[in-house]
Amino acid sequence: MIPRYSRPEMTAIWTPEARYAIWFEIEAHATEKLAELGVVPQSAADALWAWWATKPAIDVAAIDAIEAVTKHDVIAFLTWVAEQVGDEARFMHQGMTSSDVLDTTLAVQLARAADLLLADLDRLLEVIERRAREHKLTPTIGRSHGIHAEPVTFGLKLAQAYAEFDRCKTRLIAARADIATCAISGAVGTFANVDPRVEEHVAAALGLAVEPVSTQVIPRDRHAMFFATLGVIAGSIERVATEVRHLQRTEVLEAEEYFSPGQKGSSAMPHKRNPVLTENLTGLARMVRGYVTPALENVALWHERDISHSSVERYIGPDATITLDFALARLTGVIDKLLVYPERMQKNLDRMGGLVHSQRVLLALTQAGVSREDAYRLVQRNAMKVWESDGALSLQELLKSDAEVTAALSADEIDDKFDLGYHLKHVDAIFARVFGA
Amino acid sequence: MIPRYSRPEMTAIWTPEARYAIWFEIEAHATEKLAELGVVPQSAADALWAWWATKPAIDVAAIDAIEAVTKHDVIAFLTWVAEQVGDEARFMHQGMTSSDVLDTTLAVQLARAADLLLADLDRLLEVIERRAREHKLTPTIGRSHGIHAEPVTFGLKLAQAYAEFDRCKTRLIAARADIATCAISGAVGTFANVDPRVEEHVAAALGLAVEPVSTQVIPRDRHAMFFATLGVIAGSIERVATEVRHLQRTEVLEAEEYFSPGQKGSSAMPHKRNPVLTENLTGLARMVRGYVTPALENVALWHERDISHSSVERYIGPDATITLDFALARLTGVIDKLLVYPERMQKNLDRMGGLVHSQRVLLALTQAGVSREDAYRLVQRNAMKVWESDGALSLQELLKSDAEVTAALSADEIDDKFDLGYHLKHVDAIFARVFGA
Amino acid sequence: MIPRYSRPEMTAIWTPEARYAIWFEIEAHATEKLAELGVVPQSAADALWAWWATKPAIDVAAIDAIEAVTKHDVIAFLTWVAEQVGDEARFMHQGMTSSDVLDTTLAVQLARAADLLLADLDRLLEVIERRAREHKLTPTIGRSHGIHAEPVTFGLKLAQAYAEFDRCKTRLIAARADIATCAISGAVGTFANVDPRVEEHVAAALGLAVEPVSTQVIPRDRHAMFFATLGVIAGSIERVATEVRHLQRTEVLEAEEYFSPGQKGSSAMPHKRNPVLTENLTGLARMVRGYVTPALENVALWHERDISHSSVERYIGPDATITLDFALARLTGVIDKLLVYPERMQKNLDRMGGLVHSQRVLLALTQAGVSREDAYRLVQRNAMKVWESDGALSLQELLKSDAEVTAALSADEIDDKFDLGYHLKHVDAIFARVFGA
Amino acid sequence: MIPRYSRPEMTAIWTPEARYAIWFEIEAHATEKLAELGVVPQSAADALWAWWATKPAIDVAAIDAIEAVTKHDVIAFLTWVAEQVGDEARFMHQGMTSSDVLDTTLAVQLARAADLLLADLDRLLEVIERRAREHKLTPTIGRSHGIHAEPVTFGLKLAQAYAEFDRCKTRLIAARADIATCAISGAVGTFANVDPRVEEHVAAALGLAVEPVSTQVIPRDRHAMFFATLGVIAGSIERVATEVRHLQRTEVLEAEEYFSPGQKGSSAMPHKRNPVLTENLTGLARMVRGYVTPALENVALWHERDISHSSVERYIGPDATITLDFALARLTGVIDKLLVYPERMQKNLDRMGGLVHSQRVLLALTQAGVSREDAYRLVQRNAMKVWESDGALSLQELLKSDAEVTAALSADEIDDKFDLGYHLKHVDAIFARVFGA
Repeated sequence: MIPRYSRPEMTAIWTPEARYAIWFEIEAHATEKLAELGVVPQSAADALWAWWATKPAIDVAAIDAIEAVTKHDVIAFLTWVAEQVGDEARFMHQGMTSSDVLDTTLAVQLARAADLLLADLDRLLEVIERRAREHKLTPTIGRSHGIHAEPVTFGLKLAQAYAEFDRCKTRLIAARADIATCAISGAVGTFANVDPRVEEHVAAALGLAVEPVSTQVIPRDRHAMFFATLGVIAGSIERVATEVRHLQRTEVLEAEEYFSPGQKGSSAMPHKRNPVLTENLTGLARMVRGYVTPALENVALWHERDISHSSVERYIGPDATITLDFALARLTGVIDKLLVYPERMQKNLDRMGGLVHSQRVLLALTQAGVSREDAYRLVQRNAMKVWESDGALSLQELLKSDAEVTAALSADEIDDKFDLGYHLKHVDAIFARVFGA
Repeated sequence: MIPRYSRPEMTAIWTPEARYAIWFEIEAHATEKLAELGVVPQSAADALWAWWATKPAIDVAAIDAIEAVTKHDVIAFLTWVAEQVGDEARFMHQGMTSSDVLDTTLAVQLARAADLLLADLDRLLEVIERRAREHKLTPTIGRSHGIHAEPVTFGLKLAQAYAEFDRCKTRLIAARADIATCAISGAVGTFANVDPRVEEHVAAALGLAVEPVSTQVIPRDRHAMFFATLGVIAGSIERVATEVRHLQRTEVLEAEEYFSPGQKGSSAMPHKRNPVLTENLTGLARMVRGYVTPALENVALWHERDISHSSVERYIGPDATITLDFALARLTGVIDKLLVYPERMQKNLDRMGGLVHSQRVLLALTQAGVSREDAYRLVQRNAMKVWESDGALSLQELLKSDAEVTAALSADEIDDKFDLGYHLKHVDAIFARVFGA
Repeated sequence: MIPRYSRPEMTAIWTPEARYAIWFEIEAHATEKLAELGVVPQSAADALWAWWATKPAIDVAAIDAIEAVTKHDVIAFLTWVAEQVGDEARFMHQGMTSSDVLDTTLAVQLARAADLLLADLDRLLEVIERRAREHKLTPTIGRSHGIHAEPVTFGLKLAQAYAEFDRCKTRLIAARADIATCAISGAVGTFANVDPRVEEHVAAALGLAVEPVSTQVIPRDRHAMFFATLGVIAGSIERVATEVRHLQRTEVLEAEEYFSPGQKGSSAMPHKRNPVLTENLTGLARMVRGYVTPALENVALWHERDISHSSVERYIGPDATITLDFALARLTGVIDKLLVYPERMQKNLDRMGGLVHSQRVLLALTQAGVSREDAYRLVQRNAMKVWESDGALSLQELLKSDAEVTAALSADEIDDKFDLGYHLKHVDAIFARVFGA
Repeated sequence: MIPRYSRPEMTAIWTPEARYAIWFEIEAHATEKLAELGVVPQSAADALWAWWATKPAIDVAAIDAIEAVTKHDVIAFLTWVAEQVGDEARFMHQGMTSSDVLDTTLAVQLARAADLLLADLDRLLEVIERRAREHKLTPTIGRSHGIHAEPVTFGLKLAQAYAEFDRCKTRLIAARADIATCAISGAVGTFANVDPRVEEHVAAALGLAVEPVSTQVIPRDRHAMFFATLGVIAGSIERVATEVRHLQRTEVLEAEEYFSPGQKGSSAMPHKRNPVLTENLTGLARMVRGYVTPALENVALWHERDISHSSVERYIGPDATITLDFALARLTGVIDKLLVYPERMQKNLDRMGGLVHSQRVLLALTQAGVSREDAYRLVQRNAMKVWESDGALSLQELLKSDAEVTAALSADEIDDKFDLGYHLKHVDAIFARVFGA
């Protein structure tokens, strides 16, 4: 966890205090049900909840000190709680195993993290939609291979991003469901010492599904799917970040990250405005993706369980969710305040001497009866002249001077092919697909 | 693609012939709709389908030869088709761009691959269920950290695998939906030269969804999610493979891969029966997981598209699906014919002198009023003697000779804690959760 | 292996024929030494080499047919050789284990692959050096964050690439040494049935080092290091490819991949010249990097060996080396024939109205006694005007009209700060560091 | 950075205080040389060093507060230093760019981290050698595929680990050299505003090599190689950890992690001694490997630099080195105190009824004139009986009762093949190769 790439709400999920609080709630809910089933005295559950109602501070240092002796974290915690609650606490954890507590806690933490990430996505989607509608008909050049292709609008670029993050949201909802399960099944998952109804009770109390079959641990394919999904979202963040970085290049300059008055771009070159936020997002995406493989490697635990997954999750549980939360928020800010330069977009659109309209001419020629091969040749020979002039020549004029072309198309017909509006006629339809209106 | 790790049905999806056939169908369906919309003559569509009805062989070498000149695969293909069909073919590909064909084709191929993988999963689930029911009540030791813990059944191990692959199936269904989209949107996705109804028509004809907003290419977050899902499935394969490898160890030998009469395990040691299939599956899982990161890196294409994703997909499209198909089939065979040794399982269960029942004694002591700390100490001091005797001593007998223990529990009560059936009483309930009955 | 990304010399290393030929040579060299040691008759070695001297074709299909029965590749091979050579062949493989043959063969193949890759690097370095010297003093704008910074030369860009690939060569030489070892140590590496002198003999005959301690297999940390090194080289390829892609962008256009006369950039837009080779290299780099993790996962084999590494190596042995060989050759071609546009570089250098010289002014001001903070403020306020004019205003002229600036610097002193040569004065020194002259 | 997986000496390298101290030293050394070259007054260098001689505490919070305004870390630091040192400090950083400081600092940190890791490796090697020599002739069964193969010694297992970590050391020394370079080359690496002699001076003062050609940043292929090397070392750690986990399995129990008196293995099962340290190492290895790919992705920065690498390095710089340092130390402790059970090793060796000697019999038969195929069949049919008896039958006795076998070998000859010493005769030679004596 890197403080500068962390936000407090997500970080709070991963504190020792938060973890121990979930541990306690699992134990108390379980004891409650065990009491109802007559396995432990009702007074045990009552004592636990009564103490909890006093909103006790959790003394992490004290628990750590016990763990230093026992070398077992859950025993250390139970010992400390017993010191606080008193004799009734000895009924706690009856028939359970440490993993029942640890794995269910991780499920709660990941589910809460997913909820924050889903809220992040909602805010991001909202901002993207607003900017997309704002620039729905702002013309800009579409580029394939970094080369000018045909006109699009800036709103379309954002609509694409919207659709992509909307898919990410769907995926994250599925991934959240995948990890939000509760296991209270005892030593090797057989419920030998704990009734399955305890699991059902705790699951319901915590808003989790019941894990149908656990083997002391919740199976790690669930977590692998979760972290893989975060990796895909990171990829989508990188895509938008890369777009902004490209648009802000000196030669392109169609958009810029917001530049605050006090900010200095460079210690040496005062004129520089660098896309540092989106470059940063590019790096953060690499990290979130980097956590996918360790999560995949965690799946194949030995027999009913080994604990190799645990250290991995101590890193990537917080690191992946905190980093992705930060990245989504940062991206939301970038899009929200992005400086967009429509004039520059138009200027770039025009700089190729009309080459971006070449395909329309090609089609018109074939429709006028020229063979596809010939049409291609005619357009290409004029296009190449424009290209080599660096936009000084105009494709429109050259075509009107090419006898082979004018044999098939009149000057008016040629002019008609250079209408920008032609390219934007389906923007409404695409927006309707993406935004539902 | 490694022939020995390939099966013909999946491999067939990725041949040039199969790819060109899909290309043709996309072009022909598109031309059909363009004719209906009055953009091209109906005779163009008719000519294409008439030629196709002759079930023409696709001459890959001829297309390759054209591509060697044009250095453009789709143009080479169109040229070759035009040579076959004649003049009417010039209306083909009207307003479309290469990516319309290429990306929609990839969608068809991946969807077909997903269908085979789903069928693989169905067969695997069927086999796992059969073996799970067969060994539903076959007792075996459950192990955490590779150390004997408490009894489970062999059927429970398989039930866990069933539940895991059932989740994999759900994920793959979602991943299939994610990549099964059709884009016929022209140069930069604006439909400037091709009516969106063409896309809708081709999508319906091919059983795909419409891509709501493409940018010449179908966005690669879809494919990233698809390959990430294959990576998770590979992790689950590795988990079962690792289990079998462990069970087949000389000292454990609770199960073995089927050993056919003609097979030689070692060129030097004729007695060896090695778990080579599951070791192989472990390696194949590494490969399928290795394809996840390139797929994630493919997401951030530049602007409306670049073609960096293409070479990656030429590798991982076939390699990931063919390898996973093979691995699922191999795993199905391993489980189907797995030699299971219940007697050895029982022998291993018994070899620890009853230590696996220690937790029950611990619980009984606390329920009899001994403090948790004291109960733990009493059990541990006897357990340690058994442990150090390598199973020669019996925990049951030692406990009955320990005055502090017998002060709390009678000999009968102690004997009762060593009943194996106690651990299996919820197997029915777990099976009901997993198999629905 | 993807044919279009393969070159014949590298591919030849990985054919079954090539592999079996190495197998034979290992067996024959070993038999030769065994004969010398008196373990087997000299006639056995003689018979093997006599047969080999006839340059026999290796019948892969026949060997495959035997393997289909024995399910063991080395036994199948030995059986086939015995069929060809006759009775004397039964002394072959005495005291050896399959892995002795397989692992030593892989060492030979990887060493040969490394030799081809080293030759590829030599050719690449030669081409980079030539183009670097050609453009040693071709001024171009240096960019950080995609934003114009200060002048560099195009030769400097290439000198950096040279130094980077020269480091790659050093790393590959080390990685080659890491994998070029021979193990002939028998069943579990104890030499129980084969004298260590056999290993020394075979190693010397094949140009390999002796593996100091093997455990039936050559340890896989060696291979992990090898493939990790290929991944680093792939990263360096991606760096240069990314640079070319940027330079070829429509708005930048300082360099272009060579565009052959017959080539068509787009089926729809005939004017397009796309950097498809370097985009392709970007994708190939992703693949070669993707093979690193499976190689790292191969290290932790179980006990003296398991065979999980084998399937991984069947993929990545050929795929990583063939792909990297192709990529290095393609990159060499790209650099060799790269179209470089010095006029456009100069035009881009000039387009910012002299902002790229701002740091020199900043330094001059501080040296003239202005505080760093004030100097920064003075330069920035003028720089911002130029920036906002999109290069229409000139920083040089604005500074000369700013009274606070001219209070510290004369007009001549200001003019002096806009000399391009100032930035190039150490190019010789850098070239001397990189090229040694 | 996870506190429980961190050691103080490595962690100290990555504190803000340590980083700022290096920053200062770079600036002061540079100013010193600039003064010598007459670019800045000697008094500037003197003032900096005079202040530094007072061993001033670095006020991280104050610097952070300035950065919150300037949004630039190096400017914030310089401003704070200027506040402390006074007017003379304005000459600091003359002609330099932030990356000169940042990248050279990272080089110092990584070099220091490498030094600690090299010391870790030395301690590990020392411990492995001691235990290897202790168990040089402790017989144990060698296993391939988890199946008993032939005898080895426990010392040989450790000798293999020694050789592997010794290679890791060689690789790390090379990787350290790769990242230990100094760049003081100004804005885009041209030395326009800073004499190359400043770089040479700072490099020498800090014990770094000169970066031959930088582009504002030190090229990231160096760092990629460094982190890839750490990933390979992690793989080797996982290998040994996996071996210990296997040896500690209940059924094998040939070795155990040291079990301290106060330790509790399980909250539920007091008899359990789990290999938790080596399972933990397995997870830590996954993390260190997981950092390799982000480092590889960092290589392809845009043009002369972008800052996407920076966030990645903020994570993996500390995380990879701190985790690996902890893991090496933990592994050293595991090997140092490993409980080794020679009696159990012998018991396991014997449990297969002599099957482990089958290859010797096979060889003896062929040497006695039996064809390889027949010899194989004879050994296998007796071996299979032993196998199926679960070691109750003895291969030695069965062979002596097999007429076809005794036709070729006498009883004495058969007995001779079951001598354990036969397998250990080359242990000395292997130790000499590994330990040089």
